[in-house]
Amino acid sequence: MDISVRADNMPQSPIRKLAKYADAAKRNGIHVYHLNIGQPDILTPPCALEAVRNLDRQILDYSPSQGTQSLRTKMVGYYAEYGIDLSPDEIIITSGGSEAILFAFMACLNPGDEIIVTDPSYANYMAFAISCGAVVKSVKTHIEDGFKLPPVEEFEKQITPKTRAILICNPNNPTGYLYSKQEMKQIRDIVKKYNLYLFSDEVYREFIYTKRPYISAFHLEGIEENVVLVDSVSKRYSECGIRIGALITKNKKVREAVMKFCQARLSPPLIGQIIAEASLSTPQEYMEEVYDEYLARRNFLIDQLNQIPGVFAPTPMGAFYIMVKLPVDDAEKFCKWCLSDFSYDGQTIMMAPGNGFYTEPGEGKDQVRMAYILCKEDLRKAMIVLRKALEEYNKQSRN
Amino acid sequence: MDISVRADNMPQSPIRKLAKYADAAKRNGIHVYHLNIGQPDILTPPCALEAVRNLDRQILDYSPSQGTQSLRTKMVGYYAEYGIDLSPDEIIITSGGSEAILFAFMACLNPGDEIIVTDPSYANYMAFAISCGAVVKSVKTHIEDGFKLPPVEEFEKQITPKTRAILICNPNNPTGYLYSKQEMKQIRDIVKKYNLYLFSDEVYREFIYTKRPYISAFHLEGIEENVVLVDSVSKRYSECGIRIGALITKNKKVREAVMKFCQARLSPPLIGQIIAEASLSTPQEYMEEVYDEYLARRNFLIDQLNQIPGVFAPTPMGAFYIMVKLPVDDAEKFCKWCLSDFSYDGQTIMMAPGNGFYTEPGEGKDQVRMAYILCKEDLRKAMIVLRKALEEYNKQSRN
Repeated sequence: MDISVRADNMPQSPIRKLAKYADAAKRNGIHVYHLNIGQPDILTPPCALEAVRNLDRQILDYSPSQGTQSLRTKMVGYYAEYGIDLSPDEIIITSGGSEAILFAFMACLNPGDEIIVTDPSYANYMAFAISCGAVVKSVKTHIEDGFKLPPVEEFEKQITPKTRAILICNPNNPTGYLYSKQEMKQIRDIVKKYNLYLFSDEVYREFIYTKRPYISAFHLEGIEENVVLVDSVSKRYSECGIRIGALITKNKKVREAVMKFCQARLSPPLIGQIIAEASLSTPQEYMEEVYDEYLARRNFLIDQLNQIPGVFAPTPMGAFYIMVKLPVDDAEKFCKWCLSDFSYDGQTIMMAPGNGFYTEPGEGKDQVRMAYILCKEDLRKAMIVLRKALEEYNKQSRN
Repeated sequence: MDISVRADNMPQSPIRKLAKYADAAKRNGIHVYHLNIGQPDILTPPCALEAVRNLDRQILDYSPSQGTQSLRTKMVGYYAEYGIDLSPDEIIITSGGSEAILFAFMACLNPGDEIIVTDPSYANYMAFAISCGAVVKSVKTHIEDGFKLPPVEEFEKQITPKTRAILICNPNNPTGYLYSKQEMKQIRDIVKKYNLYLFSDEVYREFIYTKRPYISAFHLEGIEENVVLVDSVSKRYSECGIRIGALITKNKKVREAVMKFCQARLSPPLIGQIIAEASLSTPQEYMEEVYDEYLARRNFLIDQLNQIPGVFAPTPMGAFYIMVKLPVDDAEKFCKWCLSDFSYDGQTIMMAPGNGFYTEPGEGKDQVRMAYILCKEDLRKAMIVLRKALEEYNKQSRN
């Protein structure tokens, strides 16, 4: 009675793998600054909470497997504002962006099929690939140049007869990178040349801090049938807990295949859909305030980090993550040490070890991912803690 | 750019495959009695709805990947009432029972591994098996004897070196059968002898209409580490839409493996967990009323069905489904015909074709599954419609 090889191969989430050390630290009365997980401290829009409190149903019944008609219709208007022209039928509601990724993989990839991601990548892509027996190949991006897309040759080197898809996250988690028009055109050309699927995770499109324009995979001409867009309301409206995402594609055959998986799990969460629908009416001022808040945090954090001796962090253009290079031998060891052997003034810091975001073993060993989802005052304190921790950790290792 | 072989092989849900014909009938002004899907018309407990309306959170954040501590703790008390002794750590909250099945398969079964189910079976088991590359073998049960468990030899005939698990649903969807003490002992002995997993779907334990005792897989001695229980609050509290289920096992290795899949999808729905927790305080009177209602419906429906010439339906002992043998050449054709070519007095009936619940092609061709989730008055009208439909369908086919 062994567990499956698939389960054996599943990576532990870098975001949560040190959770037990954090719990122990808290039990010891230490305050932990959580920069490890993309759970914002931003308040959910009041109109979303109102929708829950005004729930006027007497039966909390199944919704359609593809999601409610009213939510999908309202989403069409949302995408139109980004120049993405859709019909409600092209939108399938999922249990978070996570399920959208899983179903995209399940519907499009055979066991053994290869999918190309940029390294580092959102760690759970690897987990979902393992779930469906697909093989992840990677194209390396580098912290030194801010994680920009490598030349097209690097992609072509990875392409084999088994390659079926390229997966991008834009703006990127964990790097904060935003692909340029030129880079998106490069991806389009490869997708078209080799007739691949383009899975595009665009859940952070609201959070872009540069003048560079946001290019959706759906803005690319000539690959309309290749694109499968992954989306989620989680970060946009700080409602990660409601588990509402979407899988969007103009490819009817893919939609029909995805719907079989949707029907097997019956329906996405009903209350979440009601909340998501209400959230689409969030006033512009809320969105602007949240944007300004993240921008201020980013600027502050980047500034603080790069002032710490030996630390390097490229300025992220979007999302709310930073990959940070630390002057340590082993960032995972350091992250664990921060939780289990260190505190400063009753406080410590939790970060996600960078290696967990790389598909290549040994990569990202001196990196961590931080999410700037805490208020500036907490970030300020967390940076003091980090500076002290690095000093003490390196003093110890020298002895 | 083909879709995956897995998607190709995914069966269409028998519950929803005729949905477009039902939609067309409705557009033509015909009232459709939905006996196809287990969506009860029973009101959700007021205490559950109150919990939503009193939501006192300002951020709808991620919950722990294994579900909230408070829900899991409260569930321990619920199971104790059924003589199932658990700790909160042994309970993992999932997005509906569906996700519990998927994760049990993902964690325990390798591609190519075999799992034995009884035929007919809940159709989505097959879908989840395909999702993870497992092979479903079946042991046939028969409508004529009410779908009782076949002798142990029938199970042993199906066992090969690749067999890893037996999956039971008790009380059974779609047959309504409840395994006897003797039958559960028989299953235990096979599980023990061949050291298999026993996946036990027990979501209908509240709905047992016979004096026969409910035996949980957890009541079986000597296979405590083999059992993975699948549960859901959907049917119990008529809250299918909140998508809260559970995977429960005393096997730590399995729990650790399942948790990797849980972490990849981040968390189960937050609001659903709040509702489920409140639902566990549903007063006994509500549960009794609902029970009495289903019992009355079952008795009425069985009586009505068996009075229709050529129709046979064994009396289900639990859940709220009946497999019904109809005097037709092809029940799927008949179900479709009822929606697209027939109406009586502006009404028609939607049933789930029986063949979709069998793993063996050609089986259940003259059967349908009905769910008695409509009030008695609607059931009465639906039975009149069915009787007329059978008359007219068979008159036509004779011409």
